[in-house]
Amino acid sequence: MISPGLSEHVDAKQRRAAGSAKWVKFPETILPAWVAEHDFRPPDSVVQAFVEVAEQAAFGYHFRARDLGAAYAPWAKDRHDWDVDPELVNHNVDVLQGVTAAIMALSQPGDGLILQAPVYFPFWDLPSSTGRTQLEWVMRRDENGWFFDVNDLEALLRSEPTAKVLLLCSPHNPTGRVLGSDTLAAIIDLAHQHDIFIVADEIHGDLVYPGAEFRPLLSIPGAAERVVTATSAAKTFSLSGIRAAISVFGDEDLMTRVRQAHPWLLLGHPSRGGIEATIAAWATGGPWVDQLVTLLEGNRDHLVARIRAEAPAVRIDPPESTFLAWMDVSDCGLGANPAATLEEKAAVAVSEGHEFGAGGEGHIRINFGTSRVILDELLDRMLPHLGG
Amino acid sequence: MISPGLSEHVDAKQRRAAGSAKWVKFPETILPAWVAEHDFRPPDSVVQAFVEVAEQAAFGYHFRARDLGAAYAPWAKDRHDWDVDPELVNHNVDVLQGVTAAIMALSQPGDGLILQAPVYFPFWDLPSSTGRTQLEWVMRRDENGWFFDVNDLEALLRSEPTAKVLLLCSPHNPTGRVLGSDTLAAIIDLAHQHDIFIVADEIHGDLVYPGAEFRPLLSIPGAAERVVTATSAAKTFSLSGIRAAISVFGDEDLMTRVRQAHPWLLLGHPSRGGIEATIAAWATGGPWVDQLVTLLEGNRDHLVARIRAEAPAVRIDPPESTFLAWMDVSDCGLGANPAATLEEKAAVAVSEGHEFGAGGEGHIRINFGTSRVILDELLDRMLPHLGG
Repeated sequence: MISPGLSEHVDAKQRRAAGSAKWVKFPETILPAWVAEHDFRPPDSVVQAFVEVAEQAAFGYHFRARDLGAAYAPWAKDRHDWDVDPELVNHNVDVLQGVTAAIMALSQPGDGLILQAPVYFPFWDLPSSTGRTQLEWVMRRDENGWFFDVNDLEALLRSEPTAKVLLLCSPHNPTGRVLGSDTLAAIIDLAHQHDIFIVADEIHGDLVYPGAEFRPLLSIPGAAERVVTATSAAKTFSLSGIRAAISVFGDEDLMTRVRQAHPWLLLGHPSRGGIEATIAAWATGGPWVDQLVTLLEGNRDHLVARIRAEAPAVRIDPPESTFLAWMDVSDCGLGANPAATLEEKAAVAVSEGHEFGAGGEGHIRINFGTSRVILDELLDRMLPHLGG
Repeated sequence: MISPGLSEHVDAKQRRAAGSAKWVKFPETILPAWVAEHDFRPPDSVVQAFVEVAEQAAFGYHFRARDLGAAYAPWAKDRHDWDVDPELVNHNVDVLQGVTAAIMALSQPGDGLILQAPVYFPFWDLPSSTGRTQLEWVMRRDENGWFFDVNDLEALLRSEPTAKVLLLCSPHNPTGRVLGSDTLAAIIDLAHQHDIFIVADEIHGDLVYPGAEFRPLLSIPGAAERVVTATSAAKTFSLSGIRAAISVFGDEDLMTRVRQAHPWLLLGHPSRGGIEATIAAWATGGPWVDQLVTLLEGNRDHLVARIRAEAPAVRIDPPESTFLAWMDVSDCGLGANPAATLEEKAAVAVSEGHEFGAGGEGHIRINFGTSRVILDELLDRMLPHLGG
């Protein structure tokens, strides 16, 4: 039983009325588990901070974006034991803007941009849309599950001297893998040896389950001159539509370089509502996040247990982070587009694995960030089709 | 007397508590009349649309940005007799983003970017930050006040063949001049003759006083292939901090060219709160804007009458639009930085004219978008120092 701070009830009809993309993209007959957003209402303190913008008619010009760094630093310290200098925090409209701006600032057209594969599918638009050369650090899988082999990264850097930026998704979407300190330290060593920069998307860093430990890349010795970290409160508190995010730096020169790479008027600014909600989330949201992680961990364990019991042809590693489960359904007879098959046969909307790049073929990604009732409905619909 | 829809009361203490940039930038002893934002609370329907985002916990991913075009088209028809195709409306985080993105899309580094002079001061950052060559179309002044002479623009285009984009502020900030149909038609003719594009900032178009008529540039014959119009509800309803704006096109190819010029992930997205407030404003805000224009017209007339009666050394043309008054105070003995002098001597914060570019020397810009009580307090403080 979850304490009153977090309600585990999710009302599908209400979510549709709210215009939630997750709930309105497909017909009502389809149960959605696709986009990476959980269904839970943020803490009252966050909702109230947003409402106060309206109550104060604080819709106009303001200076609050500059307070995001001071709001994030104690959150980073408390949640991740990470010392962030508020003066080295830049603000963005969203994390993807921060990621894209940093990649463009730290490389030239034609330079190599390394993506993990598989990875969060919008990243695959970045090489072509920014004119960088697409390079892939492909994950491996052994009996312990998916992992990143830094020897593969080293080999890639040796063979591709144009490589200039590694875009790292940590914790990793879609696998939910949390990169360990040794891996992160090896990546930083390689960055120095091969003169590359790392843009780290750490947006799932708050949602890590017992047994795994999230380590911010910028907390690794030697990272400061090589790393830009993009994050926000959007995944943890489901605030993606109200637009406030940050880039964190360890080095002032690097921050200046990224800031000056684009006309400042081109990028716009985070919104007042998003800023106030985010500041409230980081100031007050800790206990609520503890409850959320417990709830999500329960969902994860339930999901994995039911799949293993009822659909043994599916291969699944329990994710260490995120509310996303990545599953190999290639032995289930669902064809080349298993998500499309499941939409048709099981009336569920899950994410197609091959859209996440190499290694995603035959996989699906399922969002379990919802109520247990809805999760069971999802599994009830899907599992009969995952028998193989 | 204004009807209950619009309250003309402005509470300075409340505005400071709301974190309004206008009210918190300077110490409380200084009465602010600088940034171009009026002090009035938006209509209840707009406030309520923003509150409903919170009540519905609609903070997450959504598809509402695509509804901005359908919301703007009837507003454009009703307020400006302008036929806008909702399918030819793009969304931006703010108007400056739309302006900057269009300039970069329609010209190359080194090309000439023509700015009006004087003009809204952030525009002066655009030539250097985008790598374009700064060209100036300088206003003239005769016995009827400030005006734009299209012969000057033609001479500039003849002498500067690299000119590629004209950034047009219409209605014009800071002078409040509304460009007439003949002038706009001549500009379109020149655009075709000299192969330039026009990026039109029409953000003040709703706030035009009787006797003048605002004509959207895209409603001029021949404009479609040459014009991008950037606008929003932000000036009319004081919504600049919540981040939603649009670019309007008359030609699909031109829209595609502007959209594809930047990586789509670089620009971010407007915020849900800003979108809902904007859609509500355009759907329901007409009667409120009528009241606002009447109130502002009264303020304008009162301001001009008091200045002419009590400070005859000041030269002022009654603005035809905007809530901004542009005044030549060069005969008032205030030195090279009259706004700074007035801040020190009169405890008011107004905008320094020379920051608006050529022609701004010896001028100040005053924001009269406030209550009559505050406007009179402002004038009571200033006028003794404007005697010359």
